[in-house]
Amino acid sequence: MKKKNKKVNAAILIIGNEILSGRTQDQNTAFISNWLNLKCGISVKEVRIIPDKEKTIVDNILLLSKRFNYVFTTGGIGPTHDDITAKSVSKAFNVKYEFHKEAYTILEKYYGKLKFNDGRKKMAKMPRGAKLIYNPSSAAPGFIIKNVLSLPGVPSILNSMIENCKKYLIKGLKIHSKTLNLYTVESNISKQLGSIQKKFRNSVDIGSYPFFRLGKIGVAIVTRSNSLSKLKSVNIDLIKLVKLKKIKILKI
Amino acid sequence: MKKKNKKVNAAILIIGNEILSGRTQDQNTAFISNWLNLKCGISVKEVRIIPDKEKTIVDNILLLSKRFNYVFTTGGIGPTHDDITAKSVSKAFNVKYEFHKEAYTILEKYYGKLKFNDGRKKMAKMPRGAKLIYNPSSAAPGFIIKNVLSLPGVPSILNSMIENCKKYLIKGLKIHSKTLNLYTVESNISKQLGSIQKKFRNSVDIGSYPFFRLGKIGVAIVTRSNSLSKLKSVNIDLIKLVKLKKIKILKI
Repeated sequence: MKKKNKKVNAAILIIGNEILSGRTQDQNTAFISNWLNLKCGISVKEVRIIPDKEKTIVDNILLLSKRFNYVFTTGGIGPTHDDITAKSVSKAFNVKYEFHKEAYTILEKYYGKLKFNDGRKKMAKMPRGAKLIYNPSSAAPGFIIKNVLSLPGVPSILNSMIENCKKYLIKGLKIHSKTLNLYTVESNISKQLGSIQKKFRNSVDIGSYPFFRLGKIGVAIVTRSNSLSKLKSVNIDLIKLVKLKKIKILKI
Repeated sequence: MKKKNKKVNAAILIIGNEILSGRTQDQNTAFISNWLNLKCGISVKEVRIIPDKEKTIVDNILLLSKRFNYVFTTGGIGPTHDDITAKSVSKAFNVKYEFHKEAYTILEKYYGKLKFNDGRKKMAKMPRGAKLIYNPSSAAPGFIIKNVLSLPGVPSILNSMIENCKKYLIKGLKIHSKTLNLYTVESNISKQLGSIQKKFRNSVDIGSYPFFRLGKIGVAIVTRSNSLSKLKSVNIDLIKLVKLKKIKILKI
């Protein structure tokens, strides 16, 4: 992984009717976003969930790959008729959709020559020029072409592959974050919180999120910044506010 | 709720840095989409997760409200500085962002005159012309303007409000669905599944989703259609395939 001292961002494109219909709860957004944040200093700026429809996939790949440093797609790289991600990415970048030699070899070895049927062979078809993202749990590789990284939709398989994306990514500035869990309600501190955010508007993001825990209501104040010193300063202001208002902090 | 015998669709716009950063797992997409499907015959066609950034919210509201019959937004209608959904929706539709009289009265009554501070008053500010979506759990109402319905981000509160959206929605054709859980692997049936999908390409959606249960691998075949008779026909073909391949069905 190359290092660069700049902000690097990404989008996630979740491809699959099962997520849109509510049948399956998406888990990949939180996993990928946390991993990119912690391990690569990359911030996810937009997520889209779209159906298994070629034109929709093509349009979104083109738009998001122009707008963000990286695009991670999940879903649609299996053996069935509704798995059209690799074909659609090929179309978006106007390259041939064809067998990737190494992927073919990996899959043929995994299944054995006799059981390597057409459905399984399909998983070796990728956009020409794609590089492989290896899959330690079920063999079928993901791929990267240009700034688009395509991963499977099954969370356990995706999770096992994520570290293999690292070598293709430019590392961004580390994003530091701190959470204060307060036993108060948002409206008790909203005015002062607004002023603190204004003071640090260019350097720190302050988020305020209500929580319910063991029958008690609270607010999690999450501060995020590329600068550790700014993050410290903002938290000094927050602690002053907490003391002034005599708010109890929940230690976790 | 009015009835119309046509396809009605929707988009969901999840507003919130906490979802994008992976800190919080989105639960609202699955809940809203299931509810729209089952109760209203409305299909969710796209979901976007975006940051608490005015321009981004405005742009997405404009685009999605043109492209889909309804847009549901979640998040950003609380009392703090990062709650900017109502203001952004006002900007998108070029209407005044002002106190909604009934919302003001509801909130003043809920908190009591003495405790009705500026943060809490902010929750009564909405786009001019908005109608209220009542909130039985924590008083602060959501709102609808044109085809955009704005709900809070906290799942338990959103869930308590969803039935109050119904009267504003046109009901679409019921979407029927059936799931067959098969003890097989996708690549064993992918070819035949593709042929069946081709046969019913204009009337039934067939999805294929691998699952792992009690140490066994399987595939859930989900069929969805507005036509109950087409759904039955497709499932007759699927059962034929299952028998031919001697695949065991998992009864749940």
